[in-house]
Amino acid sequence: MKKFGVILILALIFFTAGGMVFAEGSAPITAKLLSNSITMIWLIIMGALVFFMQAGFAMVETGLTRAKNASNIMMKNLMDFSVGAIIYWAVGWAIMYGGLKEVFLNGAGSSTFRDWMFQVVFAATAATIVSGSMAGRTKFTAYLVYSLFISGIIYPVSGHWIWGGGWLAKLNFHDFAGSTVVHSVGGWAALMGALILGARKGKYIKVDGKVHVKAIPGHNMPLAALGVFILWFGWYGFNAGSTLDGTSMDIAVVAVNTTLAAAAGAFGAMLISWILFGKPDPSMSLNGALAGLVGITAGALVSSPLGAVIVGFIAGLIVVLAVRFIDYVLHIDDPVGAISVHGVCGAWGTLAVGLFATGERGGITGLLYGGGFRQLFVQSIGIGSVFLWMVAATTILFFAIKITVGLRVTEEEELQGLDISEHNAESYYGFQIFQNQ
Amino acid sequence: MKKFGVILILALIFFTAGGMVFAEGSAPITAKLLSNSITMIWLIIMGALVFFMQAGFAMVETGLTRAKNASNIMMKNLMDFSVGAIIYWAVGWAIMYGGLKEVFLNGAGSSTFRDWMFQVVFAATAATIVSGSMAGRTKFTAYLVYSLFISGIIYPVSGHWIWGGGWLAKLNFHDFAGSTVVHSVGGWAALMGALILGARKGKYIKVDGKVHVKAIPGHNMPLAALGVFILWFGWYGFNAGSTLDGTSMDIAVVAVNTTLAAAAGAFGAMLISWILFGKPDPSMSLNGALAGLVGITAGALVSSPLGAVIVGFIAGLIVVLAVRFIDYVLHIDDPVGAISVHGVCGAWGTLAVGLFATGERGGITGLLYGGGFRQLFVQSIGIGSVFLWMVAATTILFFAIKITVGLRVTEEEELQGLDISEHNAESYYGFQIFQNQ
Amino acid sequence: MKKFGVILILALIFFTAGGMVFAEGSAPITAKLLSNSITMIWLIIMGALVFFMQAGFAMVETGLTRAKNASNIMMKNLMDFSVGAIIYWAVGWAIMYGGLKEVFLNGAGSSTFRDWMFQVVFAATAATIVSGSMAGRTKFTAYLVYSLFISGIIYPVSGHWIWGGGWLAKLNFHDFAGSTVVHSVGGWAALMGALILGARKGKYIKVDGKVHVKAIPGHNMPLAALGVFILWFGWYGFNAGSTLDGTSMDIAVVAVNTTLAAAAGAFGAMLISWILFGKPDPSMSLNGALAGLVGITAGALVSSPLGAVIVGFIAGLIVVLAVRFIDYVLHIDDPVGAISVHGVCGAWGTLAVGLFATGERGGITGLLYGGGFRQLFVQSIGIGSVFLWMVAATTILFFAIKITVGLRVTEEEELQGLDISEHNAESYYGFQIFQNQ
Repeated sequence: MKKFGVILILALIFFTAGGMVFAEGSAPITAKLLSNSITMIWLIIMGALVFFMQAGFAMVETGLTRAKNASNIMMKNLMDFSVGAIIYWAVGWAIMYGGLKEVFLNGAGSSTFRDWMFQVVFAATAATIVSGSMAGRTKFTAYLVYSLFISGIIYPVSGHWIWGGGWLAKLNFHDFAGSTVVHSVGGWAALMGALILGARKGKYIKVDGKVHVKAIPGHNMPLAALGVFILWFGWYGFNAGSTLDGTSMDIAVVAVNTTLAAAAGAFGAMLISWILFGKPDPSMSLNGALAGLVGITAGALVSSPLGAVIVGFIAGLIVVLAVRFIDYVLHIDDPVGAISVHGVCGAWGTLAVGLFATGERGGITGLLYGGGFRQLFVQSIGIGSVFLWMVAATTILFFAIKITVGLRVTEEEELQGLDISEHNAESYYGFQIFQNQ
Repeated sequence: MKKFGVILILALIFFTAGGMVFAEGSAPITAKLLSNSITMIWLIIMGALVFFMQAGFAMVETGLTRAKNASNIMMKNLMDFSVGAIIYWAVGWAIMYGGLKEVFLNGAGSSTFRDWMFQVVFAATAATIVSGSMAGRTKFTAYLVYSLFISGIIYPVSGHWIWGGGWLAKLNFHDFAGSTVVHSVGGWAALMGALILGARKGKYIKVDGKVHVKAIPGHNMPLAALGVFILWFGWYGFNAGSTLDGTSMDIAVVAVNTTLAAAAGAFGAMLISWILFGKPDPSMSLNGALAGLVGITAGALVSSPLGAVIVGFIAGLIVVLAVRFIDYVLHIDDPVGAISVHGVCGAWGTLAVGLFATGERGGITGLLYGGGFRQLFVQSIGIGSVFLWMVAATTILFFAIKITVGLRVTEEEELQGLDISEHNAESYYGFQIFQNQ
Repeated sequence: MKKFGVILILALIFFTAGGMVFAEGSAPITAKLLSNSITMIWLIIMGALVFFMQAGFAMVETGLTRAKNASNIMMKNLMDFSVGAIIYWAVGWAIMYGGLKEVFLNGAGSSTFRDWMFQVVFAATAATIVSGSMAGRTKFTAYLVYSLFISGIIYPVSGHWIWGGGWLAKLNFHDFAGSTVVHSVGGWAALMGALILGARKGKYIKVDGKVHVKAIPGHNMPLAALGVFILWFGWYGFNAGSTLDGTSMDIAVVAVNTTLAAAAGAFGAMLISWILFGKPDPSMSLNGALAGLVGITAGALVSSPLGAVIVGFIAGLIVVLAVRFIDYVLHIDDPVGAISVHGVCGAWGTLAVGLFATGERGGITGLLYGGGFRQLFVQSIGIGSVFLWMVAATTILFFAIKITVGLRVTEEEELQGLDISEHNAESYYGFQIFQNQ
C-alpha cells in the first residue's frame, strides 16, 4: 500500500510534468500556452495585414478618380479608419460581440484585446468601401458622420447576426471571412450613398431625351494597380486569418483558394472586357482581381481549389457586367466600381458557398457536392436580409445627414475639386494638370 | 528498495519525456525550443515590418517636398539604411548591446542574429527621420557622413543608456518601443540639422523687418498618404514586436493601444487644423496619425486603451501647434514636420508614461493612477538627458561636416533641384512641371 | 510482479501524457502539432510577403520606363501572376515537385497546400522578371502566352532539377532560395526576350556606322524606389522563408545576411556609378540593392555576415558594369536592367556559394573557407546548365510566339504607347505629359 502511494505521488508529479513540459523561473510553459501564443501572433500579424488594406483602398480609389480630389480621398480613408476605430472601441465591439458590459473594452483581457484588434480592421474595411462610390462630390463632414454610424452601429448589428452568435449564425449561415458581413455591407452602403448623392456633374448628360454616359478616367493607374496588389496582399490576412486559430491546418487551403480565386477573377474580367470592348481593360482587370477576392471570401474554407477558380472566374465576369449595368442602365455613378466589386460579388460569393462547399471542411455541403438546396436557401436568406438591413439603415443615415449637415458639395466646389474646396490643399503641386482634372 | 529504485528510474525517464515531449529522428522537440521558435519568427517578421517603414518614410518625405528633389530623397533613404546597416553591424550593435567583443557580430549565435535583425531596423528609423527636415538643400555627401555617425555611434550611445542596461535603465526609465530612444533621438538630430543648415531659399523672406513665412507645399499627396499608411502598418512591428517575446500575451494590448493612439492622433490633428485654419488639413492629419504613433510608442505596454486615446489625441494637437511654432516663431525650416512629429511628440509620449502607466503591466505606475511623481521625474530625466546628448553630439557632427565635406549645396544647385545637381537624374521624366518645382 | 505491472501501466500513461501534453475536448495538442503549426503560419506569412514582391516588380518596372506604357506594365504584372498561378496549380507544381498524380493539386492535404502556396509565388517571381526587359514594345497577347509556358513548364523543369530532387540536387548543387532557380531563370528569359524582340525604336541610332546609345529615363522615380523597398521587404519572405521550417534557428542568420547584402549592394552600385558617371546614380543604386539581394539569395544560409557583405558589394559593382556592357557593347535594350540584376547577379550569387560557404550551416564549404574547388565546380555546372536550358527553351518559345500570335507591336503602336494601343487606356489622365513619353 505504501509503495502504491509512492507510485501515485510520482504519477501525479509526472502527469503534472507532462502538462508543464518546461519550467523556467516561476511560470511553466504549457502546450496550451504555446498554442495560445501561436494564435496570438497569428491574429496580430494577420490583423496588421488587414489594416494595410486601408492603404490599398486609398490607392485604388484615388488612382481611379480625378487628380483634383486625391487629397480628399486620402483624408476620407484616413478618417474612416480613425473615427471608425475609436467608435468601434467605444460601442461597435460591444454591439457585435462583447455585450454592453464591454463598451470601451471594459475589463478586457489579452484574448479580447487580440480579437478586437483583428475585428476592428474588418469594420474599417466595410466602412472604407463607400468612400470610392461617393468620390468627387461628398461633403467631408457628411463622410465623417457616416463613418461614425457605419462602424459604430450599422456594421456591428448585421455583423452580430452572423459572427456574433445572432439569428443568422443560428440558421447555420456560413460566411467565413466576410463576403457578406464586410463586403456586401460596404457595397450596399456604397449603392445607397451613390444613389442618394446623385452622379458627378457631367457624368450623365441628357441629349434629346437620351442619356449620354461619359467615362471619367482615373488619373493614376500605377497607384490603382499598387492598391490592388496591396489589397491582394492584405487579403491573406483577411481570409487566412479568419481561421481565428493559428494552429489550424486549414490555413493553407484558405490561402490557396484566395490566390486562385483572385487570379481567376483577374483573368475572367480581362477576358470579358476584351470581348466586350475589343481590348483587355486594365481597370476592369484590376477590379476583376478584387472581385475574385471578394467572391472567395465567404467560401475560402469550404471550397476546393477548383471551386475557388470557378467562383473567382465568375466573379470576374460579374464585376464587368455589373459595372456596365449600374453605369449604363441604372445610371448610378460609382466612380470606382465599389458597388459591383463589393456588393454584387459579395452576394455572389456568399451564394456560391451553397453551391461549392465540398463538405470536407466547415461542416456544410453545397448543391454541387450533393448537399441539396438547404445551404443555398440559408445563404440566400442571409444575403437578402443583410441587403434589406443595409438599404434601410443607410437610407435613413444618408437622408438624416442630408437634412442636417448636408450630403453634397456645391456645383462650384465640385468643379473646383474637393482638394481645394474642402481642404484648401493641392495634391500634385507643381505638376501641370489640365483644367478641372 | 529495489522496486523504489525502478520507480525512480522510470520517474526520471518520464520526467525527461515530459521535457522532450516528442522525438523525431534525433533532436527532441522541447517546449523551450517551441517557445524559442515562436519568438524567432515573431521578431523576424516584426523586424521585416519595421524595415518596411523605410518605404513609408521615403514616401512621406518625398510626397511632402518638391518634385525636383524626389530622387535625392529616395537616395538618402536608401543610403541611410544601407550605410547604417553596415556600420551598425560593424560597431553600432557592439556599442549599444554587445560590448566590444561583438563588433562585426563576432561569435554571434542565432539569438544574437535575431536580436540584431530586430534592432538594426530601429537604428535605421532614427537615422532616416533627419532626412525630411534637411530636405531640399543638403549635400548628399554630407548626408552619407551623417548616416555613418548617427547609426554607428550617436544612436547606440543613448540607446545603450536606456535599452542596453545603461544608467537610465538602472533609474527605471521606461521607454517601451522607443519614443525617446528612436524618435526623439531622430527628432533632435533633425532639429539641429535644420538649424545649422538654415532654411530653404525663399522660405523666410524679410520684408520691412518682418519675416514673411512662405508655405512650400508637397508635390505628391497620395504618396505622402501611402507613406503614412505604410508607417502605421510597420508600427505594429515596431511596438508589438518590442515585447521581444513571441509568447507574451501583452502583444495584444500593445497592438490595440497603437491602433487607438494613431486614430486619435489623426483625429486630434484634423480637429485643431480645422479650428486654426478653417478647413481640415490633409498633411496635418497625416502627421497627426504619426504623432499619435510616436506618442504611444513609449507607453504602448503600460497604458490602458483609454490612456492611449488621450495620449494620441494630445499628440495630434501638439504636432500641429509645434509645426506652426517651429515654422512661424522659431523660423526653423523643417519641410516635413519631422522635429514636431518625432522630437516633440516623442518627448510627450515619454513623459506620458509617467502620467498614464496603469501599474497593471511593466511594473510602473503613473501620476494619474496613483503612482505619484516618481516615474514622471525619471521620465523627465531621460527626456532631458537624451535631448542634451543629441544637441551636443549632432552640433559637433554637423559642424564637423560643414567644415570638411560641406553641409549645404550652392544656391544655384538648390534652385535647380538636387535631383539634377546631386544625381544628374530627373524624377518625373516626361511630365510637364512648373519651373523650379 | 503486480506492482511492476502497475508501474508499467502508469509509465505508459505518463509517456503518452508527455507526448500529448495537453488535452482540450477531444484532440490533444502534441508538440509535433505545435511545431507543424509554427511552420504553417511561417510559410503562409512568408508566402504572402513573397506575393507582395509582385507589387514591387510592378512599381520598379513602371517607374523605370515611360509614362505611356505604365498601364501595360501593370497589366503584364497582374496577368503573369494570374495566368501563372492557375497554370502552376494545373501542371507546374506537378512537374516541379508533385509528380503527375498531383496535377490540379489532386489529393492535396494541408502540407501540400502550404508548400504550393509558398512555391507559386516563387514561380511568379521568375515569370515577372521578363516583363521589364521586354517593356514598351511587346504585344500583350505574346506576353500572356509567354506567362503560360514559363510558369507551367520552363520554370518547373529546371526547378525540379534543383529543388525537386532532380539531377542537380543529387550533385549537391546548393541554391538556398533561388539565385539560379528563380532569378537567373527569369534573367536569362529576359535576355532572350529582349534579344529576339529587338530594341525600342530610337534606342540605338546608327550614325555614320557608329551606334549612338540613347538613354530613355524612367518616368517615376518615387514609384521605382517604392518598388525596391517593397522588394527588399518581400525578400525577407523569399530568403528567410526558404528555411521551409518555422522552428529553424537559422532563420535569423538568413535575415541578417539578406539585410547586409542588400545594403552592401546598394552601396557598391552607388560607389561605382559615382566613379564612372561623376555622380551617385539613383536608378543604379536602387538596382544595386536588388543586385545584392539576388546575389545573397543562393548563399543566405551558408554565408557568414562578412561573406554576405562581400557578395552583396560585388553584386552592386557587377550590376552597374553589366548594365553598361549590355547596353553599350551588346546593344541589347533592357529598359530596367533585369538581365543584369537577375541573370548576371543570380549567376554571381550562385557561384559565390562555392567561395563563401563557411561550412557551419547547410553542409557545404566554399573555396575561401578551405573547402577546395569541389563546390565551386558543382555550382558552375548548375549555372551553366540552367543557362543553356533557358536559352534553348525561351528561344524556341519566343520564336514560336513570333510566328504565331506575333511578338512585337507595330512601330506606330510603339510610338503611341502600349497603354493606348494595347489597352485603350491612359495612365495619367489629366496630367500634361510631353509628346511620346
